[in-house]
Amino acid sequence: MKAYEEMSSEELLKEKAILSQKYEEVKKKKLKLDMSRGKPSLAQLALSLEMMDVLDSNSYFLDETGTDCRNYGIVSGIPEAKRLLGAMSEIHAEDVVIFGNSSLNIMFDTIGRSFSHGVCGAVPWSKLDSVKFLCPVPGYDRHFRITEFFGIEMINIPMTPEGPDMDLVEQYVQNDPAVKGIWCVPKYSNPQGYSYSDETVRRFAALEPAAEDFRIYWDNAYSIHHLYEDPENQDVILEILNECRKAGHPDLVYKFVSTSKVTFPGSGVAAIAASKKNLKDVLTTMKVQTIGHDKLNQLRHVRYFGNIANMRRHMMRHADILRPKFEMVTETLDRELSDLQIASWTKPRGGYFISFDSMDGCAKAIVKKCAEAGVKMTPAGATYPYGIDPHDSNIRIAPSFPEIRELKRALDVFVLAVKLVSIDKILEERA
Amino acid sequence: MKAYEEMSSEELLKEKAILSQKYEEVKKKKLKLDMSRGKPSLAQLALSLEMMDVLDSNSYFLDETGTDCRNYGIVSGIPEAKRLLGAMSEIHAEDVVIFGNSSLNIMFDTIGRSFSHGVCGAVPWSKLDSVKFLCPVPGYDRHFRITEFFGIEMINIPMTPEGPDMDLVEQYVQNDPAVKGIWCVPKYSNPQGYSYSDETVRRFAALEPAAEDFRIYWDNAYSIHHLYEDPENQDVILEILNECRKAGHPDLVYKFVSTSKVTFPGSGVAAIAASKKNLKDVLTTMKVQTIGHDKLNQLRHVRYFGNIANMRRHMMRHADILRPKFEMVTETLDRELSDLQIASWTKPRGGYFISFDSMDGCAKAIVKKCAEAGVKMTPAGATYPYGIDPHDSNIRIAPSFPEIRELKRALDVFVLAVKLVSIDKILEERA
Repeated sequence: MKAYEEMSSEELLKEKAILSQKYEEVKKKKLKLDMSRGKPSLAQLALSLEMMDVLDSNSYFLDETGTDCRNYGIVSGIPEAKRLLGAMSEIHAEDVVIFGNSSLNIMFDTIGRSFSHGVCGAVPWSKLDSVKFLCPVPGYDRHFRITEFFGIEMINIPMTPEGPDMDLVEQYVQNDPAVKGIWCVPKYSNPQGYSYSDETVRRFAALEPAAEDFRIYWDNAYSIHHLYEDPENQDVILEILNECRKAGHPDLVYKFVSTSKVTFPGSGVAAIAASKKNLKDVLTTMKVQTIGHDKLNQLRHVRYFGNIANMRRHMMRHADILRPKFEMVTETLDRELSDLQIASWTKPRGGYFISFDSMDGCAKAIVKKCAEAGVKMTPAGATYPYGIDPHDSNIRIAPSFPEIRELKRALDVFVLAVKLVSIDKILEERA
Repeated sequence: MKAYEEMSSEELLKEKAILSQKYEEVKKKKLKLDMSRGKPSLAQLALSLEMMDVLDSNSYFLDETGTDCRNYGIVSGIPEAKRLLGAMSEIHAEDVVIFGNSSLNIMFDTIGRSFSHGVCGAVPWSKLDSVKFLCPVPGYDRHFRITEFFGIEMINIPMTPEGPDMDLVEQYVQNDPAVKGIWCVPKYSNPQGYSYSDETVRRFAALEPAAEDFRIYWDNAYSIHHLYEDPENQDVILEILNECRKAGHPDLVYKFVSTSKVTFPGSGVAAIAASKKNLKDVLTTMKVQTIGHDKLNQLRHVRYFGNIANMRRHMMRHADILRPKFEMVTETLDRELSDLQIASWTKPRGGYFISFDSMDGCAKAIVKKCAEAGVKMTPAGATYPYGIDPHDSNIRIAPSFPEIRELKRALDVFVLAVKLVSIDKILEERA
């Protein structure tokens, strides 16, 4: 097959006729498939089932300090949970404060606190005329929604396979005191699956922000979420808290981590890690907000895993389920689309997503065409602040939830949609 | 024994000498007792132990709509949890949104949302020069801390056995548009154990606030937390959402409820109940804040209780543990202090606290004297905004946590401290 751009219009119309017929046939099947969200599959949920047996009415409910996890007390989390979630993220237990079930909720609360009370004594953002956030794009829609909700101006920063464009990041952070933060998914990024290079992490740690209350919002969502067991096929990134310390900027970063995609989404344990000064600031609010989070669920997680080695082994069982799906997607795209030169896509070694880029101006139409054939994709534009992809080209593929057979069907529809929309685009440009 | 005020100074000094000796003896015992917080006791925690057996690896994890409670989804809570927490609070499931483990956290978030985004489209409080809250006193210290944290001016409203002084409430709410809320614990109030009369509830529902964004913060913390099984000995209050609807003010109230003192504090389920319009406002924020709360814990609670009748029976087992402690406290106070006419106290039929009023200017000294003998009380003043009790007379007694033998010891110390401080006060006034 030759590239679409190299085909004559006649050839394209012929190809379109064949594809359209296939598409109409698929439509008749009335599929109902979902590649829209990073949801673990049923098989993945089954991996953690035995965690439900860890605590029962005969259990011992004291944590290692002797505190009864069934009662009030210990607002910042039980020590063994701090240690486990710290280990997930390569940090010490003393740098960790445990929250509830959702790291997104911690991020929301962190922005909320900065808005109402300011960061470590700085002016509350609610009192400022302008607050800006840097948003590496494409990125995570739910991050962008939090900053949008608080009326924070979002600035797109292009992503590269090494991480965000650091020249641009430095320029904004070091010159504009209105820039208060940057959203980062440093490892197996959402949606591209990129991991920040050592140089990128070091440049982050070396930032000299114009604003004293600038922080890096380091969402370490996929710290141990590899697809491959072989260490050579696993991404490794530098530990940011440590790098910030070494660079003399210990307070520069908030790190977020959770077990949502380790055990049960919605019933996991989430945490923030940061410097002593930042954690003190966090706790000042937390002590007003709650008497404490769910310590029984902390205990359940700790008793189930015992240590980080077991948790890593557990993640390899997730990998065994996820890997064939990821590989099927990228192999199908390679096979069906490579020659045509109408799109590009990433090949992550971990995380939950594959990022797909169509020709400019095609993403919305592709997602729409998929929907009309019963395949739900993440809305085009969702990976950009305000839902506006300036190129209308990025689509996030989430292969985790469907069974592999369904995923295959969904992908066939997706490929058809990509081809059809691309042909229309080329013909339109030629007209 | 005659009243202290009727004794001569000589008699008082003699009494003081005897009491001081007892006090010194008690001090030598190096007690370490705690009557400071409304914490359930070990025996109470044991009542819910079998809830830990409800879910295991063989369980069926779908809610009644077929949603898998182990995965993401259903941000507002599973229907059966809405029904159960609704029933706890005499409201319909559709008026309920389930949150995480803590109703305090919901209240914090509610104030936080009003601060950053305003109530149902009204001007955010962060943009107003003055925001005021009415605080029935004595009241719950953690309520007051939330409003203090957000810089809200708190106005004391005296409590009566019928509820807050409604003349004063009406005067403030209906004339001052800066008054945006009132903290209420309408049933078995913290700390007095008073329950609002029908007239009080109806006057609340009939309020015509000067501020469109005024809301009643109705913390229904002790809705089913009776001490007595006989219905004649149980307090009943009118249902506020319904009363507000009848009065043509459906949006006037937020109602808060949780199972923290039904099952396990910190590992319970909490909810807000309100009008459709208010819940829509709540959910607009919640959808940005989280993908969802812990549905497995919701399921665990629902499966354990099955229905509200079982939950009420369960509360009677709590009552059997709590009642002897409450009765021991009030009987001891009656026996030791009634004749002396130096204090008054409440005799609640439910809830978690007994409110004690010493002579003016004595509470701090009494709490200090208790502490010196190893008995920890809630800090004097804590039941007032800013920790300032204008009479320095109110002390909150929390009888739930200690075993009854320990409670008895603690109370003996307390009574000694009350007597000694009161004698000093009377002598000082005479001097």
